[in-house]
Amino acid sequence: MRRVAIDLGERSYHVCIGEGLLDAADSFAGLPTSATAAIVSNDTVAPLYAQRLKAVLQQRHARVLDIVLPDGEGHKDWSTLNRIFDVLLAEGCDRQTVLYALGGGVIGDMTGFAAASYMRGIPFVQVPTTLLAQVDSSVGGKTAINHPLGKNMIGAFHQPLRVLCDLSTLSTLPARELSAGLAEVIKYGPIHDPDFLAWLESHVEALRAGDPSALAHAVARSCEIKAEVVGADEREAGLRAILNFGHTFGHAIEAGLGFGVWLHGEAVAAGMVMAAELSARLSLCDATLRPRLEALLQRAGLPVRGPRLGAADYLQHMRVDKKASAGEIRFVLIDGLGRAVVRPAPDALVAEVIESLCA
Amino acid sequence: MRRVAIDLGERSYHVCIGEGLLDAADSFAGLPTSATAAIVSNDTVAPLYAQRLKAVLQQRHARVLDIVLPDGEGHKDWSTLNRIFDVLLAEGCDRQTVLYALGGGVIGDMTGFAAASYMRGIPFVQVPTTLLAQVDSSVGGKTAINHPLGKNMIGAFHQPLRVLCDLSTLSTLPARELSAGLAEVIKYGPIHDPDFLAWLESHVEALRAGDPSALAHAVARSCEIKAEVVGADEREAGLRAILNFGHTFGHAIEAGLGFGVWLHGEAVAAGMVMAAELSARLSLCDATLRPRLEALLQRAGLPVRGPRLGAADYLQHMRVDKKASAGEIRFVLIDGLGRAVVRPAPDALVAEVIESLCA
Repeated sequence: MRRVAIDLGERSYHVCIGEGLLDAADSFAGLPTSATAAIVSNDTVAPLYAQRLKAVLQQRHARVLDIVLPDGEGHKDWSTLNRIFDVLLAEGCDRQTVLYALGGGVIGDMTGFAAASYMRGIPFVQVPTTLLAQVDSSVGGKTAINHPLGKNMIGAFHQPLRVLCDLSTLSTLPARELSAGLAEVIKYGPIHDPDFLAWLESHVEALRAGDPSALAHAVARSCEIKAEVVGADEREAGLRAILNFGHTFGHAIEAGLGFGVWLHGEAVAAGMVMAAELSARLSLCDATLRPRLEALLQRAGLPVRGPRLGAADYLQHMRVDKKASAGEIRFVLIDGLGRAVVRPAPDALVAEVIESLCA
Repeated sequence: MRRVAIDLGERSYHVCIGEGLLDAADSFAGLPTSATAAIVSNDTVAPLYAQRLKAVLQQRHARVLDIVLPDGEGHKDWSTLNRIFDVLLAEGCDRQTVLYALGGGVIGDMTGFAAASYMRGIPFVQVPTTLLAQVDSSVGGKTAINHPLGKNMIGAFHQPLRVLCDLSTLSTLPARELSAGLAEVIKYGPIHDPDFLAWLESHVEALRAGDPSALAHAVARSCEIKAEVVGADEREAGLRAILNFGHTFGHAIEAGLGFGVWLHGEAVAAGMVMAAELSARLSLCDATLRPRLEALLQRAGLPVRGPRLGAADYLQHMRVDKKASAGEIRFVLIDGLGRAVVRPAPDALVAEVIESLCA
């Protein structure tokens, strides 16, 4: 088992990475053994893994509840979140109840927000079963639901007690979702670590094939980088925003098409290409980064062109992004390979980039 | 202007208490002057005070939005909360937007939770216009909405930037609501300050008559006591629970009758009587406290007997109280005048107290 320490003072925790962690007794050492635990999962993941997790939790808690939500980003809303509260209240769950989020990023975000809000805060543990969730939402404590007018607009910062990344669960992940997760892995190269970008260029096929040691390194290195950035800026005042490389354009794609049409990672992939191009046009980075990134993303099975929504629609959606300030869109741009900055850019230039990189 | 410092490290703030603070430029010194502010109020308070607050905020913010919610505890729910998010998103409000909560405890709790959750946290200022909100919800950072299965079950801890208690606004408060606020003022005596209890016994008529200097002292001393308790226990791990004296029984009354039938302070008043009696029967405090408290509460215009819901119903509602742990109800009891403890009590004894003090 590899462990990455997320250092946040009294809210510090570990991301544990390895095969079979889901029901290894070791994974749970030191976690609370209060009367009740609840596994929050979805109708895709629950049939695969909930029973195994439940069996091990039943050795630790007098009662283990199952809460199975409908699968998909389209259900990341209040009414689905409220199903968690309905069960917790109907079952008389108290403030010591531990929530286990078993699933991808949607389950992690919703369970985390439920844990942040139920009785103003109860503990939770993440058991991410997608690559995206393992490398992204597992670190940083961001939780949220969507609003019809914007993605992740309602949420909280709430740190888990622990994150258990069981690499074995990735074997049941559809290839398209594994690729979507690779988008967030690849992201860490340009913004922070050129060596990792080069490592990915020589291991992308192994990762897609599910090679355990390659996956372990990719997940651990991604979490390390994210932890470094988040540790310096837990509440997203500044530096942390660089983790959203590709996300400003990506959110516009997701919002423009309707959430759930493209996977988040797919939108981020096409978004990174646009952000790299914008960086180059602003003379922040070398023009070779964009084609280099495109080549890697394509080998990872990801789209490198956004949908033709029209530049005006992109700009409109980007203006309600959480990073926007006083209506000014702020982009995460590459300022020399391995370094990112957050800054605005002229609308006309952004529109040019969008028009040239949508198909 | 009197100021009470709420010392919570980097989340410290001041409660300012005085006449006419609502639109005195001084009240706002040092608060952010970002592009947008939004006044969240209700259809009772907005016609009285929103325009005055708006006029002074328009000198500080380029844009001041009005969000007027329906009045009443019955609207302290998700769909009403969501109206705040609808406006903030439709108007493209960013993370620098400052929310002003203008109204009673319901408006403060909902606006605070909206501020805690919108884009995972934006700043807010409380402008409480009821005595209850000035002495209770203004200190401590508790925010929440109700769920059909429990009061304040979904929420967050989120501290305001400042609290402006304008005592002049109490002149438009119905007498019944002023009395309900006095319940929370009186509470601070038995749990923390016998001298304050004696002061209240000699000033309760002045308070009901709206005497400004009596009100200023009652509000300031209540906030000071609450600040002391909250400062020692921001996240409600232990000590802070003593502020819920009378609330365990009181929540059962509110939940049993349906939220909004009794005012919160009325339910707390009858609840304090039961809690005092339970304390005496457990030999924690003198048997004279209950009649002494009853006399003061009656002079304050408050009920001293709970509704006849039946002890079983009371117990059922109390079991889902947030202070409950593993199904065990925890009561705030008076352990000698001026000192409170939190502990369980035998169901049979609690039932006896309920049956003897409901009418």
